[in-house]
Amino acid sequence: MSPSSLPNLSIDADRLWSTLERSAEIGVGKAGGLRRVALSDDDKVMRDQFVEWCRSCGCTVTVDAAGNIFARRAGRENDLPPVVVGSHLDTQAAGGRFDGILGVLSGLEILRTLEDNGITTRRPIEVVNWTNEEGARFAPPMAASLRLAGIQPIEWLHDLRDDDGIRFGDELARISYLGDVPVGGRDLDSYFELHIEQDDLMEKEGKSVGVVTGGYMSHALTCVFRGECAHTGPTEMKKRRNAMIGASYFLAAVNDIGWEYEPVGRTSASRMIIWPNKFGILPEYAEVTVDMRHLERDLTNEMVAKTRVALEEAARKANVDVEITAEWTFGDEVFDPDCAQLVRDAAAARGVSRMDIKSIAGHDAYYISRIAPTALVFSPCVDGITHNEAEDIRREPTVEAVNVFFDAVVARADR
Amino acid sequence: MSPSSLPNLSIDADRLWSTLERSAEIGVGKAGGLRRVALSDDDKVMRDQFVEWCRSCGCTVTVDAAGNIFARRAGRENDLPPVVVGSHLDTQAAGGRFDGILGVLSGLEILRTLEDNGITTRRPIEVVNWTNEEGARFAPPMAASLRLAGIQPIEWLHDLRDDDGIRFGDELARISYLGDVPVGGRDLDSYFELHIEQDDLMEKEGKSVGVVTGGYMSHALTCVFRGECAHTGPTEMKKRRNAMIGASYFLAAVNDIGWEYEPVGRTSASRMIIWPNKFGILPEYAEVTVDMRHLERDLTNEMVAKTRVALEEAARKANVDVEITAEWTFGDEVFDPDCAQLVRDAAAARGVSRMDIKSIAGHDAYYISRIAPTALVFSPCVDGITHNEAEDIRREPTVEAVNVFFDAVVARADR
Repeated sequence: MSPSSLPNLSIDADRLWSTLERSAEIGVGKAGGLRRVALSDDDKVMRDQFVEWCRSCGCTVTVDAAGNIFARRAGRENDLPPVVVGSHLDTQAAGGRFDGILGVLSGLEILRTLEDNGITTRRPIEVVNWTNEEGARFAPPMAASLRLAGIQPIEWLHDLRDDDGIRFGDELARISYLGDVPVGGRDLDSYFELHIEQDDLMEKEGKSVGVVTGGYMSHALTCVFRGECAHTGPTEMKKRRNAMIGASYFLAAVNDIGWEYEPVGRTSASRMIIWPNKFGILPEYAEVTVDMRHLERDLTNEMVAKTRVALEEAARKANVDVEITAEWTFGDEVFDPDCAQLVRDAAAARGVSRMDIKSIAGHDAYYISRIAPTALVFSPCVDGITHNEAEDIRREPTVEAVNVFFDAVVARADR
Repeated sequence: MSPSSLPNLSIDADRLWSTLERSAEIGVGKAGGLRRVALSDDDKVMRDQFVEWCRSCGCTVTVDAAGNIFARRAGRENDLPPVVVGSHLDTQAAGGRFDGILGVLSGLEILRTLEDNGITTRRPIEVVNWTNEEGARFAPPMAASLRLAGIQPIEWLHDLRDDDGIRFGDELARISYLGDVPVGGRDLDSYFELHIEQDDLMEKEGKSVGVVTGGYMSHALTCVFRGECAHTGPTEMKKRRNAMIGASYFLAAVNDIGWEYEPVGRTSASRMIIWPNKFGILPEYAEVTVDMRHLERDLTNEMVAKTRVALEEAARKANVDVEITAEWTFGDEVFDPDCAQLVRDAAAARGVSRMDIKSIAGHDAYYISRIAPTALVFSPCVDGITHNEAEDIRREPTVEAVNVFFDAVVARADR
């Protein structure tokens, strides 16, 4: 079955929009966006709403031990591995109404459209909500898909702590989403994720569908600076070992490195942990995570090399010790050419504008691509604003993208 | 009555040491020092112990609405304003066993020695424990003496919040130290504070008593950087408005300014508040407090001027807005020449080595000097290490200092 063989079905745009609007009411942020961090009370309310919607359209819902929710619509051959479609319903602490959410609710809308039209695909289709994609409460981001891809054991996930020392596993149980199904360990036919672009390239080019062909090579370092507590007053400059000052020299240098490689390259830091972080006492501990991203792997590596030099220099200037305690890369994942081609074909069949594109942000699709053929598809967002409560999308290109996505998913499920 | 007219009395050094040792058991820090931050459960235990000690030697204890504890030993003329002696029992989050504590427990030891010997001074003597000198939990430091000096109203003090949003007034009531006596508003004859030096000048010079003749001029600025939340990945360098990066450029520059003026001058930063301070999202808010200190007022002012330039430059580099939200100075307070002379005379009479000295750290004595004749007296500490759990003192010079201090206080009370 090719996409064109679908009986000219389209999703119900009004219905999709009403689910997005309902989602936007749950965990409203201070500026009107969303603050629905993972495993919060609001996350539970949204999950309950999502489960109710899925059950109402005939799906079987299971929750795994990572809190990932899978809503399964049976196929004609239910022994075949499912096509999985989804993204995440959690947000940043000052997040938008569409990042991740559009992907999950588009998946729901696909199942509803199939149900409305009495269509049963060959393979089962499952819509997934990944737990804690953002990492806003429990670092790292994409933690549950990372577990599902087998990169870390379940104990690692359950033992993650938020800034108040609260355990991931305990919070998962508290909100009643600690499932009894093992995380992963079964075959997936494929994984399709629709996500807002989070940049403005598509908008500038006037394209409704972005077929992600790869990612920016991203390299992150967690660096711990260790100095010594002392009085802010009597301690002479040469006796000071202020860990926060070491971190500050470092972040300033890392930002300078970003400017050397702009506009394509960029460096980031968004979080600093300081102890004791009080008046009057020089801090003995500071921890920062920085990441360097570039489209070209060699240039990312060059930025990383400069960052390592800057790290030593910053520690020397502040007379503190420094240690890299974690280091990881992502973004050089390979997406599945066949899945990508299904999206291109669907766009062509519908006459929807599309472009190939690179992803700069991380997505659950990155980790899932390690265990299943994966397609990551972008729809445009307004002015590239994201991880910001003002994040917005326009309806027309979004609906075009969801319809193309629908066709590609069904085509894969009928393959 | 002059000090030499005392009948060769000395304090009971063993008894003083046993109170210091008992104090060192209450709120033990991770490295064996103290973590007894203001209005914590441990602060309450220490306060209860202090009150019990004071009552056991015949004192009347009152607690004011700031939680300041006054233990009063009656004099022969109880209508005269009291001589007040004290310091603070709270510590930094990683603090020492003597900073502040020595001053309060020396005051107690003075009262005990007078009681043992049946001596009644002309004026009443009161030993005070000031609430929240350190500012480790509730900023700013010296908050209760600041209130008592009339610089801020009681509502301001009660409405201070810790990092968890808990209100000072509520915590004071919780630990049962929200007294019904107004803060201040009565005459004090004088105020005497004994404190460890927190530097190593006295140790190097081999002096047991330091008569503080003034302070380093200290100028502090609280600076708020405001940027915009955005994604750490797709956001191009030129679109970034990362408030934490602005603060980092600033702190690096402020530290460089400190080095320009070393060894006498110094600049500090010890605390940064960041929001949201999470992975994946550029922070929109960062707040730091920096201070510049120098023995010479003109040079402090010069450092402050350079800091203001650095602030604008840092904001420009990070493309964020910046605002100075608070600004204060201390350290140019004038201590009372007569009170200081009593200490010098007492040292001479006992043959104890002494030196005049400048204070670099802030103390409650600074604020109290604005409303009463004040003496600040230092005793040496080991290697100048303070605001650090390894903070230590040597017994011999400390006991010499406490005896000199005792003589001066009694001389003033008999004046």
